[in-house]
Amino acid sequence: MPHKSASVKPIPDIVVGRLPFYLRTLRSLAAEGRDITSSLELGTRLGLTSAQIRKDLSYFGEFGKQGLGYNIPFLVGQLRRILKVDRVWEVVLVGAGDLGRAIAHYHGFHDRGFEIRMVFDSDPAKIGQSLADFKIGDMETMVDKVRAAKIRIAMLAVPATAAQKVADLLVKAGAKAILNYAPTALVVPKGVTVQNIDPAAHMQHMTYYLES
Amino acid sequence: MPHKSASVKPIPDIVVGRLPFYLRTLRSLAAEGRDITSSLELGTRLGLTSAQIRKDLSYFGEFGKQGLGYNIPFLVGQLRRILKVDRVWEVVLVGAGDLGRAIAHYHGFHDRGFEIRMVFDSDPAKIGQSLADFKIGDMETMVDKVRAAKIRIAMLAVPATAAQKVADLLVKAGAKAILNYAPTALVVPKGVTVQNIDPAAHMQHMTYYLES
Repeated sequence: MPHKSASVKPIPDIVVGRLPFYLRTLRSLAAEGRDITSSLELGTRLGLTSAQIRKDLSYFGEFGKQGLGYNIPFLVGQLRRILKVDRVWEVVLVGAGDLGRAIAHYHGFHDRGFEIRMVFDSDPAKIGQSLADFKIGDMETMVDKVRAAKIRIAMLAVPATAAQKVADLLVKAGAKAILNYAPTALVVPKGVTVQNIDPAAHMQHMTYYLES
Repeated sequence: MPHKSASVKPIPDIVVGRLPFYLRTLRSLAAEGRDITSSLELGTRLGLTSAQIRKDLSYFGEFGKQGLGYNIPFLVGQLRRILKVDRVWEVVLVGAGDLGRAIAHYHGFHDRGFEIRMVFDSDPAKIGQSLADFKIGDMETMVDKVRAAKIRIAMLAVPATAAQKVADLLVKAGAKAILNYAPTALVVPKGVTVQNIDPAAHMQHMTYYLES
């Protein structure tokens, strides 16, 4: 079997997707005043086996010392660096309906690496209105403004019927990452990442396990 | 190697979690007037390989005929049955803040098997107010009302600091599935399923792939 160094071992996307939850849990532990944790404790908090935790973290190097557990502040720092949230990313929000309003008012983004900087909508009744700290911009101006600000991350909170069209405009504006709240699959070019928030899908995932 | 019949092959949770997205995509195809699809087309729409799609669906029996593709209405019916959304589940929503309001106004649940029936909040200023088709109930009455209505699915849209306490009450009320919008891990007894909606975690998943 050919030798593979840790640096070239491809990291499965499913593992990358778990890292934010590791980071979140480690920061909770830190907030509780804790310095050291174990794969067992992390597993219990996250609903994963300790073997899974050790395997996931091993992709990124040797974080734990045998028998000594994980140093929480160190691991938090490493995960923030790996996930590139040891900085704050500017974000554009498209859609100022009920959901867009809830997103704009949500205070949990900044602390985790994100700051909404612009909000757009196509509804003339909404354009120019205030929303949280923003004035809602005209969708017609979105591409130019997002491109000028070099914003690469977007949140898409528009109806499913408009989502693909808006995604195309966001890609044109230079977006490389789109958080899609519309219950529809977006087609984007290579090099653009999409993550979907679909509560009904999560609900259906759970009903699988319910007794009828 | 011992023979395993399809009916006893354990279905990985990760596969179960993809089925709602298969169902969503198949229903989109059906809405476009299509009758037949292929693992290749499903894969393209879902960002998965066709091999992955075939493997996932094989857990549930032989849905496709070699060379003929998948019959969309049949597969939709099978997935709805497997996910137990060939019925409508009653849901309780706890939290009537910005996010709770957006959830209560969202029209995408019923068509996918869910109907919010009750909304609760602990804020005296909100209790008794109208929200969508509901009157916001007093959190103090939640356990009794949810138990009496035999509602087993809950959406939790309260601040992180209150989430565990409310989850404990929901479990007491008989909830078996909780969709948690608070950015905190819930501890629940065996037999209760939790799914988390954490947009910041999805964003961090994407920044991993961004150039700094």
